[in-house]
Amino acid sequence: MDTHATFSPASLAIEAGGVMLALTWADGRVSRFPALWLADNRPETRRGAEGQRLLDAVELPEHIVIRAAEIVAGGIEVSFDCFEDPSLLDPAWLRLNALDPASRAERRRVPQLWDAAIAGHPLPAAEHAAVTRDKAALLGWLRHVDRLGFALLHGVPTTPGAVCDVVSLFGYVRETNYGRLFDVVSVEEPHNLAFTAMALGNHTDNPYRDPVPQLQLLHCLEAAGEGGESIVVDGFAVAERLRREQPETFDLLARTKVSFRYVEPGAVDLRHAAPLIELDAGGDLRTIRYNSRSIGPIDLDPDALPGFYAAHRRFGRLLHDPAMTVGFRMRAGDLFVVDNRRVLHGRRGFGGGRRHLQGTYADADSLLSKLRVLERET
Amino acid sequence: MDTHATFSPASLAIEAGGVMLALTWADGRVSRFPALWLADNRPETRRGAEGQRLLDAVELPEHIVIRAAEIVAGGIEVSFDCFEDPSLLDPAWLRLNALDPASRAERRRVPQLWDAAIAGHPLPAAEHAAVTRDKAALLGWLRHVDRLGFALLHGVPTTPGAVCDVVSLFGYVRETNYGRLFDVVSVEEPHNLAFTAMALGNHTDNPYRDPVPQLQLLHCLEAAGEGGESIVVDGFAVAERLRREQPETFDLLARTKVSFRYVEPGAVDLRHAAPLIELDAGGDLRTIRYNSRSIGPIDLDPDALPGFYAAHRRFGRLLHDPAMTVGFRMRAGDLFVVDNRRVLHGRRGFGGGRRHLQGTYADADSLLSKLRVLERET
Repeated sequence: MDTHATFSPASLAIEAGGVMLALTWADGRVSRFPALWLADNRPETRRGAEGQRLLDAVELPEHIVIRAAEIVAGGIEVSFDCFEDPSLLDPAWLRLNALDPASRAERRRVPQLWDAAIAGHPLPAAEHAAVTRDKAALLGWLRHVDRLGFALLHGVPTTPGAVCDVVSLFGYVRETNYGRLFDVVSVEEPHNLAFTAMALGNHTDNPYRDPVPQLQLLHCLEAAGEGGESIVVDGFAVAERLRREQPETFDLLARTKVSFRYVEPGAVDLRHAAPLIELDAGGDLRTIRYNSRSIGPIDLDPDALPGFYAAHRRFGRLLHDPAMTVGFRMRAGDLFVVDNRRVLHGRRGFGGGRRHLQGTYADADSLLSKLRVLERET
Repeated sequence: MDTHATFSPASLAIEAGGVMLALTWADGRVSRFPALWLADNRPETRRGAEGQRLLDAVELPEHIVIRAAEIVAGGIEVSFDCFEDPSLLDPAWLRLNALDPASRAERRRVPQLWDAAIAGHPLPAAEHAAVTRDKAALLGWLRHVDRLGFALLHGVPTTPGAVCDVVSLFGYVRETNYGRLFDVVSVEEPHNLAFTAMALGNHTDNPYRDPVPQLQLLHCLEAAGEGGESIVVDGFAVAERLRREQPETFDLLARTKVSFRYVEPGAVDLRHAAPLIELDAGGDLRTIRYNSRSIGPIDLDPDALPGFYAAHRRFGRLLHDPAMTVGFRMRAGDLFVVDNRRVLHGRRGFGGGRRHLQGTYADADSLLSKLRVLERET
């Protein structure tokens, strides 16, 4: 895209007695900007182009009118009735933040949903040696995590703690009662069923925690002799399928809080209640929670319970539908990361041989920050 | 409460052809339990009384009928049509998780809202020497944080890093791009306005982060000569006042996502969009976000903007209403913790003398876990 040409204003008009500025761009797009919004976003309100704001919207006058506006060499000069000096607005900034439907749609991030069909292509992956040396390789790997909620990393040194070093490529370990990292091996009398050789259904980790861990990394130090195949499923794809096929079931799951808990007597008592399908204020998917080991007793009116169980079971079956799931085998040195708000993971039971994984949690905000910084650099 | 007597079942009845069990307790309360729910919560489905579940609801039969039920010495014995052996249910567990309206209401946690009037009493506080030695003192202090979203701690050693030691009393530091802890002092050319001597309006920290830091701790190593008074305000109390006085304004703020951002060129680019008043799936308050320094350009249809600005400004004015805010002066060795999802903090500008605070972030799940564990021990 030729940003220079696109971001050039062709003409402007003051509308509605000065409360609206209509800008026509070189590519024909028209963007309308309320005077109040322009006053609140003058360069004078910020420390530098991307700096922090110096003004609270509370401090603006109640009514703001544009007295004059003109396209000049350095941008768009706007005079407001309430400020002595005119402001010079940056057309590129205005275009990037414009409020017309097309500009708003361009800014909308839509997750790239996937199902079993992605197993027909190479899975999203990178080499450890590349991402530690090369910014473009790291950017590519982080983009997989952002867009698909899942990525593999091959050739990670099989030294204990290496999983935390991978986190430091993009962010910070989230320490919990399980430590900065945790070992997943078969042990006697484990506190947690993850530490046995049983198969584990597809699940998200730690729904009893608020905030839920956003990213989980699992690093294979030793692979089992047989079995132990890992499984991932895109919970957002399953939820959107449910929203399409059974909207009432989807709505019921999205508005019903379910309790989760994890207790180690005398040491840990984690509890949280939230929907299996959590939406944000805009109705977009925010967090999937599904974990049969930690779900608490359902707390609903008795007469509402059968309907909820039917919805829960319908969702649970879809989350295990082979058409939606992808299996792969972890070899020593492999690591996978999932967005634990979106992608469920599980494993088939394993038999002979010792299996040893190390896992850790991290938050996605730092990963997205790193991704944006790398996008400008590469 | 005499739990033994209360939790005694007096009589029971099988209803609706076996799909419902009605239990009448010694205190007269009647609780109805669907057969499906009872089958899903049999002791056989868990590893021990509070252990993890071994069963996914997906694995239960579609229709479950109670064949027989009887009060016996050890509890309530229930025979289901789909299982060979009867299950022995624990009455105390059933009462604690019962689904009748009174039992469900008893489990509902309601935050204890506050306003400027709490300044007429001693502020919620404890002594550092007490909470580090005495479980009951620590429990009391954590209860303040849980119920009020705010508490002071006096007599914290003025050694750098002590704020992280306080976190380790109940949980784990959330590391961010600001480090495990950050210093708040006046510096030249700061990246962040917090590091100047300016007054700061009441705000929540880091709304550009997802997950938002849930707890913030600020520890005073050196107090300023004059000014620098700290301010806190219960954002939940303000939001509930708005919900009561102007329900349409409240709804508009709760359904409108606003973008926040924090950029250090070449290093950090944190962005998140969420409402100023975020509700959970049940309509309860979940997170308040208010930060005039990091709020991004409002991304709404131009014709919807004036209404949003009016609502935003109304909320902002209420958050600074002296009837809602509490001021206090930090002395060296004082520390305060706020639930950053609920309580805003600010400060008046300060003049002569050096002021040095150290701050850190932590998550509330570990704090609540610690609180529940201590409640059983003390």
